[in-house]
Amino acid sequence: MDLNGHTFLAKVLNIVNENKSENSPLIDFKHPHELEAILDLDVSKGCTDAELEKCVREVLQYSVKTDRATFKNQLYGGMDPYGLSGAWIAEAFNTSQYTFEVAPAFTLIELTMIRHISRLFGISGGDGIFSPGGSMSLFYSIVAARYKAFPEVKSKGMRALPDMVLFTSEDSHYSIKKAAHWLGFGTESVRVIKTNARGQMLVDELDSELQKERSLGRYPLLVNATAGTTVLGAIDDLPAIAELCKKYGVWMHVDACWGGSLILSSKYKHTLSGIESADSMSWNPHKMAGAPLQCSVALVRERGLLHAANAAAATYLFHRDRFYDTRYDTGDKSVQCGRKIDAFKLWMMWKARGDSGLCLLADYTMSIAQFCLQSVSTRPGFRLVSDTLQCPNVCFWYIPTFMRGAEEDAGWWELMHKITPKIKELLTLSSRLMVAYSPLREYKNFFRMAFTFHPVVKENQVLEMLQAIEDCGESITMPMLL
Amino acid sequence: MDLNGHTFLAKVLNIVNENKSENSPLIDFKHPHELEAILDLDVSKGCTDAELEKCVREVLQYSVKTDRATFKNQLYGGMDPYGLSGAWIAEAFNTSQYTFEVAPAFTLIELTMIRHISRLFGISGGDGIFSPGGSMSLFYSIVAARYKAFPEVKSKGMRALPDMVLFTSEDSHYSIKKAAHWLGFGTESVRVIKTNARGQMLVDELDSELQKERSLGRYPLLVNATAGTTVLGAIDDLPAIAELCKKYGVWMHVDACWGGSLILSSKYKHTLSGIESADSMSWNPHKMAGAPLQCSVALVRERGLLHAANAAAATYLFHRDRFYDTRYDTGDKSVQCGRKIDAFKLWMMWKARGDSGLCLLADYTMSIAQFCLQSVSTRPGFRLVSDTLQCPNVCFWYIPTFMRGAEEDAGWWELMHKITPKIKELLTLSSRLMVAYSPLREYKNFFRMAFTFHPVVKENQVLEMLQAIEDCGESITMPMLL
Repeated sequence: MDLNGHTFLAKVLNIVNENKSENSPLIDFKHPHELEAILDLDVSKGCTDAELEKCVREVLQYSVKTDRATFKNQLYGGMDPYGLSGAWIAEAFNTSQYTFEVAPAFTLIELTMIRHISRLFGISGGDGIFSPGGSMSLFYSIVAARYKAFPEVKSKGMRALPDMVLFTSEDSHYSIKKAAHWLGFGTESVRVIKTNARGQMLVDELDSELQKERSLGRYPLLVNATAGTTVLGAIDDLPAIAELCKKYGVWMHVDACWGGSLILSSKYKHTLSGIESADSMSWNPHKMAGAPLQCSVALVRERGLLHAANAAAATYLFHRDRFYDTRYDTGDKSVQCGRKIDAFKLWMMWKARGDSGLCLLADYTMSIAQFCLQSVSTRPGFRLVSDTLQCPNVCFWYIPTFMRGAEEDAGWWELMHKITPKIKELLTLSSRLMVAYSPLREYKNFFRMAFTFHPVVKENQVLEMLQAIEDCGESITMPMLL
Repeated sequence: MDLNGHTFLAKVLNIVNENKSENSPLIDFKHPHELEAILDLDVSKGCTDAELEKCVREVLQYSVKTDRATFKNQLYGGMDPYGLSGAWIAEAFNTSQYTFEVAPAFTLIELTMIRHISRLFGISGGDGIFSPGGSMSLFYSIVAARYKAFPEVKSKGMRALPDMVLFTSEDSHYSIKKAAHWLGFGTESVRVIKTNARGQMLVDELDSELQKERSLGRYPLLVNATAGTTVLGAIDDLPAIAELCKKYGVWMHVDACWGGSLILSSKYKHTLSGIESADSMSWNPHKMAGAPLQCSVALVRERGLLHAANAAAATYLFHRDRFYDTRYDTGDKSVQCGRKIDAFKLWMMWKARGDSGLCLLADYTMSIAQFCLQSVSTRPGFRLVSDTLQCPNVCFWYIPTFMRGAEEDAGWWELMHKITPKIKELLTLSSRLMVAYSPLREYKNFFRMAFTFHPVVKENQVLEMLQAIEDCGESITMPMLL
């Protein structure tokens, strides 16, 4: 039986480092059927280490180098190298987090991180859990809110409960719809509140909707405020929403998956003011702060609620007759059984940099986004969607020369709606830049350039990216849009 | 701004290798408050690389070395080194799986693995998704079953649906209760069917319960059969359950999270016969097969159902105006938004070993479990809970000399119920072995020794582990049990 393979691990650092070099392109795009023809993915036969290395190198050649400054396609990107070190160690120690016994140090590390993060957000004394992503963190919060209001849901289900309503803004993340489906509310129970031009939930409309639903006999369960919307990076008026939640006795959740990282900045943390009133919140350090994917935390103000809501008390795993203090076992507050030790990589990067090191990174990220915003605002052909920065999201159109000066009627905007994806296609195929675009409300497709802690992007790199957009935009001709 | 840290990554291989050496103990157990006093976990201040390395080494010193032969505490353990290589590369490439654009090669790899696995299990032509663990894979399956029966659940929620029932065996995994709570059924909707002495669901009882629930006007939605129960490793009578599911028009799910790996064995795959009739199934290659945590796959027979059930069609992420074939985008069949590329590490180990290499490992795992079973059956003081092997789980009591020969009345068994955890404590504190124990039905606490593909355990190591149990068992005196 061939059980070497241990030697392969030593090759990994080389393979990875080669791909980290700027010589390999951001993306070598192939269409699905082309790539299927290139890659030798079949696993049935087995191969030598040398063959495996060749296959792996090919796979990586055609993979996106997400650590580049020019990867602006999502709300994550480069990683904190300390975080990656932590991720590698976590993988090598292959540990599931359910009991203290099997994960003693890692359990204390998760507790330390939850305490530290809770304190930062002003929600001390509560509880939390690391989960596999922002959607799951939202699910945890809704489940906690529902159990708090109607503990009988656990045994009796949703059919025993009144008609409930969840409130969210039209700019919020789509995961609340998935939650409404999975958790048995149904998507019709989600009330979508309009936003202002800057992307913030209209608090007056939330007020009247809360009132209306109550008068109709429905039970307003939870308001999902957002601190850092996906596209514009808007931060809802958290103090005003907190006041409404108090007034109506509704659970306040803050989805700070993206914007939560601003709590690390001494200059910008005030923009999250009001979050300390939340009953629950979620934050993804794997987004702006550069922890490797996945690293998401759900915080719940009421201590013990996560455990009460989620416990199943499996006798084979969570023993009362253990010889240590089993209150340290985290498994029964989790909906997962096996759970990765995601807190460890965050701990490593935080331990290395401290609050002040992360503060510098957060401040710099906002300042480079501000530089980008200013550059876009003065550069011919570029037009901002919103001219104020809440999170490090800069949203804009590029209007090619042949489009300028014309009347901006519906037809003109329909053309802009096609121009943005076309520029993106040209950028991707030339490997100069991968940048997100999106429509939003009445706005036709526009670019979203979002900045993260890693890699540290310099001003000249921002200008190069804008230049790339301009070059591709100018190369567009009408026939390309048909 | 200190952004080195890249140099730290090179240290990781050394740090990991040192802990892989047999010189470091399996576990250096400290109680929570002792460990809190030893470890310097505070992250607020930041530190140098040298200080960080010291802290990390301390954390790892007190962490469990799950890759040892003597780690028999859970249903996972050592890792396939090719799998770990894959995990490290996946971490370094920090990629989320939602669109083909951002994960071109990794998307094709997930598709390849799902196709290959589906074919192995005889559920070709369907669909699947890698999820963060067995619980989530079960959730996916229940959501698919519910949507198939009542598509209106997505918009209208559970209150619009009839009273539904889920069926599972008393030996099955507790995650179905968590699913019943989270998804809004309520735990009372779970009908727990009794098992025979070997741990298999009583099919006659399932039949009469299905009939009864239907006659009471409730809707039997899903039968959760198990292929490899958590404790005994029992495989339900899948062909008989499939027949009942067909008869009553009920969705058949097979939880093969643990036992699914036997499909890799040419000798034992027949024990999973009947699984090809399942409407959905889940398998965790991170358990027996040694893929690094997390690696779990949910398969659904009906193509397109995962997508139809889970799509939210977020305009910012899943564009119809993309320049490539967006049918390759997997994000809208996922309940997560960001999703790790868990298929890659499995692909690497499978690519290296091929079907035949994994077959050897599966066969050997069963043969070493068989050796353990035979040793236990003949060794004085050891007593098997079940003398037939279904999965590589060997369950037994150790009866110290002072307990032997007495009448085995209730009082005697109460004492045995305390002796097993006591032996486990002594084994852990001496770092000789970490082994699981559990009560089950009428059985008082007993040991479960489960074997996995990695590390490859030798016969003398099995005998050493049994000897360790015997030594610790013999060192017990009555006062220690009070």
